[in-house]
Amino acid sequence: MMTPLENERLKYQPRIPAILKNAANLAAKESGRNTVSAELKAAFPHIGSAERVTFVEGAKKQEKPLKVGVFFSGGQAPGGHNVIAGLYDLLMTLSPKSELVGFLGGPSGLVDGKAIVLDEEKIALFRNQGGFHLLGSGRTKIETTEQFEKVRKVIEGMNLDGLVVIGGDDSNTNAAYLAEDFAKREIACTVIGVPKTIDGDLKTEDVEISFGFDTAAKVYSELIGNLGKDLLSAKKMWAFVKLMGRSASHLTLECALNTQPNIALIGEEIEEKKKTLQEIVKEITDVVVQRAKQDKPYGLILIPEGIVEFIPEFKRLIGHLNTLLAEGKGPEQLDEEGKNLFYLLPKVFQEQLTLERDPHGNVQVSKIETERLFMKLVEEEIKRRGEKVSFSPQPFFFGYEARASLPTNFDANYCYGLGMVAALGVSLGMTGRMAALSNLYLPAEQWLPNLAPLVAMMGFEMRKGERKGVITKALVDLDGDMYKHFVNVSSKWKFEDRYLCPGPIQYFGPETVTDILPWMIKVRR
Amino acid sequence: MMTPLENERLKYQPRIPAILKNAANLAAKESGRNTVSAELKAAFPHIGSAERVTFVEGAKKQEKPLKVGVFFSGGQAPGGHNVIAGLYDLLMTLSPKSELVGFLGGPSGLVDGKAIVLDEEKIALFRNQGGFHLLGSGRTKIETTEQFEKVRKVIEGMNLDGLVVIGGDDSNTNAAYLAEDFAKREIACTVIGVPKTIDGDLKTEDVEISFGFDTAAKVYSELIGNLGKDLLSAKKMWAFVKLMGRSASHLTLECALNTQPNIALIGEEIEEKKKTLQEIVKEITDVVVQRAKQDKPYGLILIPEGIVEFIPEFKRLIGHLNTLLAEGKGPEQLDEEGKNLFYLLPKVFQEQLTLERDPHGNVQVSKIETERLFMKLVEEEIKRRGEKVSFSPQPFFFGYEARASLPTNFDANYCYGLGMVAALGVSLGMTGRMAALSNLYLPAEQWLPNLAPLVAMMGFEMRKGERKGVITKALVDLDGDMYKHFVNVSSKWKFEDRYLCPGPIQYFGPETVTDILPWMIKVRR
Repeated sequence: MMTPLENERLKYQPRIPAILKNAANLAAKESGRNTVSAELKAAFPHIGSAERVTFVEGAKKQEKPLKVGVFFSGGQAPGGHNVIAGLYDLLMTLSPKSELVGFLGGPSGLVDGKAIVLDEEKIALFRNQGGFHLLGSGRTKIETTEQFEKVRKVIEGMNLDGLVVIGGDDSNTNAAYLAEDFAKREIACTVIGVPKTIDGDLKTEDVEISFGFDTAAKVYSELIGNLGKDLLSAKKMWAFVKLMGRSASHLTLECALNTQPNIALIGEEIEEKKKTLQEIVKEITDVVVQRAKQDKPYGLILIPEGIVEFIPEFKRLIGHLNTLLAEGKGPEQLDEEGKNLFYLLPKVFQEQLTLERDPHGNVQVSKIETERLFMKLVEEEIKRRGEKVSFSPQPFFFGYEARASLPTNFDANYCYGLGMVAALGVSLGMTGRMAALSNLYLPAEQWLPNLAPLVAMMGFEMRKGERKGVITKALVDLDGDMYKHFVNVSSKWKFEDRYLCPGPIQYFGPETVTDILPWMIKVRR
Repeated sequence: MMTPLENERLKYQPRIPAILKNAANLAAKESGRNTVSAELKAAFPHIGSAERVTFVEGAKKQEKPLKVGVFFSGGQAPGGHNVIAGLYDLLMTLSPKSELVGFLGGPSGLVDGKAIVLDEEKIALFRNQGGFHLLGSGRTKIETTEQFEKVRKVIEGMNLDGLVVIGGDDSNTNAAYLAEDFAKREIACTVIGVPKTIDGDLKTEDVEISFGFDTAAKVYSELIGNLGKDLLSAKKMWAFVKLMGRSASHLTLECALNTQPNIALIGEEIEEKKKTLQEIVKEITDVVVQRAKQDKPYGLILIPEGIVEFIPEFKRLIGHLNTLLAEGKGPEQLDEEGKNLFYLLPKVFQEQLTLERDPHGNVQVSKIETERLFMKLVEEEIKRRGEKVSFSPQPFFFGYEARASLPTNFDANYCYGLGMVAALGVSLGMTGRMAALSNLYLPAEQWLPNLAPLVAMMGFEMRKGERKGVITKALVDLDGDMYKHFVNVSSKWKFEDRYLCPGPIQYFGPETVTDILPWMIKVRR
C-alpha cells in the first residue's frame, strides 16, 4: 500500500540531460588520457588502461537486444530504485527486446544466481521511491576464487551482456575486480558501477557526488534545524547530535552548512591537527561554559559517527586493544599513553571497548556511543573546573532514518540519469567504468554524462596483510572550497545563535524549495 | 536568517472559519448547559458556572481598544506562533488601537512582568513558523499566594483586559485558577486558554485536538516510515522506536496508524489488561522469534515514552522505591513482588531507577530508556528460550526533533483560528474558557469557533496531599473509534510487512498531500 505522497511521487518525471534524449545515436568518445599508475595497471592488465568516456552524437545504430543484471550492494541510499528505472527505460529505448534481471539480497544474489526479471510492471511502483526493497541489499564481499567461479557461471548461464553494480567504494572495488576477471577470461559481460553512499565518501573529479547523500543530509538537516528552534525556545538543553558517516565527515559538514550549529566536529580536521580527546573536550567545554555565562545554557553540536577513529590517540588505543584482546590480555597491559586515555573514559565506555567485539574479535567502534561519551566528558570537565553552570545535555543519533527515505528531486534526477548512463555503458561495452554525470551545478538538462574508469579511482591499501588496489575513500578536503567556506562562516556560530531550519524536503512548489543543490555541489562551483 | 522554505511559509494565508471573517459583528451565545459538579462549582464559585459559548452574527459593535497579554507555557508545539498571529490580527481588526504584549520565558514572565509589545513588525517573521522563540517558554507553575499577588500587580499595572495562556493541561488548570482569582477580586481581565501539547492528551468533546499533535505525529511518522523501508531492504534490524508522550499513548497510536509497524504498545491497553513487564516481553519475543523463523529477522515496534508507568507492577515498584529511597533504604527492602521485578531488570536499569533522582528525590521515570530496556529483555528472553534466531535491535527515540518544527497546514490553520477565537473571547469578556474550534473534519472554512469552559474539563486529583481541581488528562479511549480501528487493522501487521512511508510534510501541491487530516480527527468523524 502506498501513501498519498508516494503515489504523487510516482508521477514525477525525472529531468534528464538533454544529450540522453538521443541515446540511441550516441557513440563513446575516449578522453585520450589515462593517469593510472604502472602498479595499478599491472594489477589490472585488462581494464587498467580504460579511459574516461564522454558521449557524442553519431549515426543511429542498429542495437541488438541486451541482457543486463543489476544489484544493490551495502547500505541503502535514497534514489536506488531510480537507477534501476533509468537503466531499464534506456535499455528498452535502445532495444525493446532487451532484458533486465535483478539479483536479490545484494552481491550474494549474484553469487548464488538468485534473480528476478525486472519488467515495467515490477518497476512501475518503485519510481522515485525510497528504499532498496525491490531487490534488497547485502554486504557479501565477492573475494574468494570460489565466489568468482560461481559468479562466472551465473553470468554465462544467464548470458548477461552487462552487470550493473550499485554500491559504495568497496562494492565498486569489487566491480573492478569482476570487470578485470571477465575481461581476462573473455567473458563478454560489461561491468559498470554506480556511485552510491549517503556518506558522500565516494567522490572523484569525475564523480562529483554519490547518490543518496543529498537526501540523507536534507533529512538530518530537517531534524537538526527543528532542534535549533527547540533550543532557542526552551533555552535549557545542549543537543549532542551524532550523524552517520564513519570514514568521512561529509554529512556533518553538509548538515552544518545547512543548519549552523554552535559546533561541528570535522574528523579530518581533528586528525590533521592531531587533537587529543581531552583537547576536543576542553574546546567544547569552553563554549558550553562561556555560553552559559552569557545566559545561554543551551547549544547544538554535530559529531560525525566515526569521530573517535580520527583522533590519533584513540585510533592507537583501539589498535592496541585489538592486539591485547586477541592475546587474551586486558587493558591493564596497555602502554602508559593507552592507559591514560583508557582510564580517562567513563566506565560504560571502557566496557563498550572491551566487551562488545565483532566476530573477528575486534573492538566494535561503531558501537561506541560517541555522542554520550562527549556529553559525559564535558560534564566531568565542567565539574573539574568547578564551574557552577547549568549543563543539561541530550543525545541524538540521526542515521538509519534517512537511508531509505524518498529521494529529493536532485537524487531522483541524478539516479535516473546514472541508470541511463549505466545502460549506455553496457550497450557501448565500456567495461570497468563508473556511470557519472558532471556539471551537476547546472540544471539537469545540462548535466554531462560520462563513464569514469574504476581503476583510476584506486590506490593501494593493506588488506588482510596484502597490498591491494582499492577505491580510495574521499575524505573532507581541508584545502577544498567547502571546508574553507565552513571555517569562514562557522566562527560566528559558537556564541551567536544562527541556527537555520531548512524544514522537510519539498516536492512541489517553487524550485527554490524543491531543487536546492547540496553544498557539496554548490560550493564546488 | 530564514531558509527558503521558511520564507515561502511566510506567504501562507491560513484558512479560517467563514464566520470569523465577520468577527466584529459576532455576539456570544451561551449554550444554556452546564455540567460542572457541585464540588467543582464550590471550588470555582466565580467561573464554575461558565457555559460553552458559540458565536452568532449580531449588530456591529463599537469596539473599545483592548490590551491583551499572552504567553507560552511548557514544551514547544508546532503552530504556537500562529496562535499569536491570529490573536493579534483579530485584535487589530476589532480595534486598530488595541495592544498585544507577550510575556517572556513562559509563566515566569507573567509573574515578573517581563514583557514585550507585539506589533506587526515583531510578528511578521514568525507567521506559520515553528518554535516558541518569539517569546520563549517555561515551566514555572503559578501556585503560591505570593505569585498570585505578583500576577495581579502585573495585570493591574499593565491594565490588561485579557490574558491568553497557551499551554497544556497543567497550564490551563493554572489559567482557570487565575480566572477565578481575577473574577473574585473584580479584576477586569478575561482569561482564555489555548490547547497546546504534542502529546494530544488535552482533549474533550469540545476541544477535538490540541495543537501541534498533528505536526509532531507527521514528523515522527516520516522517520518511522523511512525506517520501515530500511528494514524491508536490509532485512536484518529490529527498530525499537520510543515516541514522546508520557501520560498518554496518543502519539504512538497516531503514528502506528500512519506507518503500520509490526507492534505498537498502547499504554492504556496495558494498564487495562494489567499486563506485567514479563508478559509484554514475552509477547514481543513471540513475534520476534516467529518472524525470524519466517526468514524475517527484522521488525518495527513503537513504544510510548511513558509505557512503564502504565504497567501496574512497575508503577507500584516506582512508588515503593520512592518511599524506600526517601527513607535512606535500598531496593533490597522491597517486598517480594517488587524484588522480583527489580532484579529482573538489567543492571543498568536498576541503576537508572536508584541513582538518577529528581530534585524531590523521586525516581526519574523519564530518564528510563524504555526502548533499550525492552531490547535487552527481549534478548534475554530469546536466550532463555534457547532459540537460535538472529536478533539485532537498534534503539530510536523520536521526541524533541518535532516539537519546534514548521507546522502542517492543519496546525497553521488551527492555531491561527484558535488565536482569533481567543481574541473574540477577550473582546466578549468570556473568562475562564478555552478557545476551541470544532467540526475539524470539515474544511477549515466550516470549522465552528467556540469557547469551552475550563472548569468543565476538570476533575479532582490529589496534589501534594490535597484534593485539587485539575484538568483531566485525556487518555486513549479503549472504547473509542480510533483505538478500535487500530485493533482491527493492526492484527495483520505482526507477521505481514505492511509498513507505510508517509514521507516528509508537504506544503505545496495537491491537497491530498498537503492537508492530510490526523487520524485523531479523521476516525472521530
